[in-house]
Amino acid sequence: MIPLRSVPEVQAGDDLGRLLADAAGRAGGLEGGDVLVVAQKAVSKAEGRTVRLAGVVPSERARAAAGDGDPRQVEVVLREAVRIVRMRPPLLIVETRHGFVCASAGVDASNAPERGTVVLLPLDPDGSAASLRRRLEELTGARVGVIVTDSFGRPWRQGTTDVAIGVAGLTPLLDLRGERDRVGYELHGTTIAVADEIAGAAELVMGKTAGVPAALVRGLRLGGTGSAAELVMPPERDLFR
Amino acid sequence: MIPLRSVPEVQAGDDLGRLLADAAGRAGGLEGGDVLVVAQKAVSKAEGRTVRLAGVVPSERARAAAGDGDPRQVEVVLREAVRIVRMRPPLLIVETRHGFVCASAGVDASNAPERGTVVLLPLDPDGSAASLRRRLEELTGARVGVIVTDSFGRPWRQGTTDVAIGVAGLTPLLDLRGERDRVGYELHGTTIAVADEIAGAAELVMGKTAGVPAALVRGLRLGGTGSAAELVMPPERDLFR
Repeated sequence: MIPLRSVPEVQAGDDLGRLLADAAGRAGGLEGGDVLVVAQKAVSKAEGRTVRLAGVVPSERARAAAGDGDPRQVEVVLREAVRIVRMRPPLLIVETRHGFVCASAGVDASNAPERGTVVLLPLDPDGSAASLRRRLEELTGARVGVIVTDSFGRPWRQGTTDVAIGVAGLTPLLDLRGERDRVGYELHGTTIAVADEIAGAAELVMGKTAGVPAALVRGLRLGGTGSAAELVMPPERDLFR
Repeated sequence: MIPLRSVPEVQAGDDLGRLLADAAGRAGGLEGGDVLVVAQKAVSKAEGRTVRLAGVVPSERARAAAGDGDPRQVEVVLREAVRIVRMRPPLLIVETRHGFVCASAGVDASNAPERGTVVLLPLDPDGSAASLRRRLEELTGARVGVIVTDSFGRPWRQGTTDVAIGVAGLTPLLDLRGERDRVGYELHGTTIAVADEIAGAAELVMGKTAGVPAALVRGLRLGGTGSAAELVMPPERDLFR
């Protein structure tokens, strides 16, 4: 686990791949097979996925859902949501257009570029991860995996853990079905969300306030291909819709 | 992340602390501040928390819930459960007496000591972690954190991630409330479930079938005290009861 400490504050339009490649270079360089984990906020800022609240006119629905929160911010959340899963004003847990279920559709005012601004999730986090991966290979020659992460809450458990919302160049789900344990019991249905475990592991060295938006994870030997879309439970298998 | 590869197959009554201390010694030794992560199966086996299905008489309720699964195994699950959260036979998602919500109350036939046997969660996983911690300090002099882990599924996301079901010698929740990010926005409600992130990180080097039941995580500088009970969402805050 190698934190990338020297990434500058990201601005809209920045070449994030170059910023990360440079930071990785100062940390000893990328190696083939590394997984580069980058916080969603950095990706969203580079892609200009921010909204100034001053220009947002909240709907009646947003005012009702806001409680003592900012109705303009709730308006932005509702525009990002395709379904409301739970509501306890000002807390909204929604399904995003990507299929993620999370608080406030991932819309967040912390670590925004300036006060009065909120940061949205990337429009296509898997696409963002794939673009970053291509750019990193172009700049460094190293074929790495890329994971874009965000902090999600979980039902029944306190605290957030970082999970993968964008994946490129590695398999996000490790399928052990068919392998057998020591006494020959077949591990039916044992599928491990390794991309989420890598995301959480990286959070341990990135932190929330430390200004470390990325980390390298080395030695996993995962490879493969895939996307974070595979981590979304298909509706027909979902017991919690 | 240091996998402990040389732990022998654990038997009921084994001194698991000694087995882990010996394995850690062969991996270079424990250092103060290390977090030792150990899979629940190893802990449960040492504590004799196994049930032979041949001796279980399933109730009518268990037969109804079993679908095409083994009604004796479902009977064991129902005995471990205080509440059924979702049921789609043979899949049961329940709340355990510890407050954990997970599939089959954590009862599992994979990696059981022998065929026809299932392994239950420890009666008191926080107590198990605390005992292991004391034993490790007694044997090695090192003050370490201990996390007992299990693989849980999650609503809305595919695949399992390992989470902390027992904790000793570290704070499971890192509370960032009151800290401020770069532009002075207060991180209201930002609490990170670091114990769960450590559990997931350790899974990456432990694997499911590789016979590596434990790992050391070094360099976290977490410290503090706490228990996995703190990770359970209190009913009054739980939007998903």
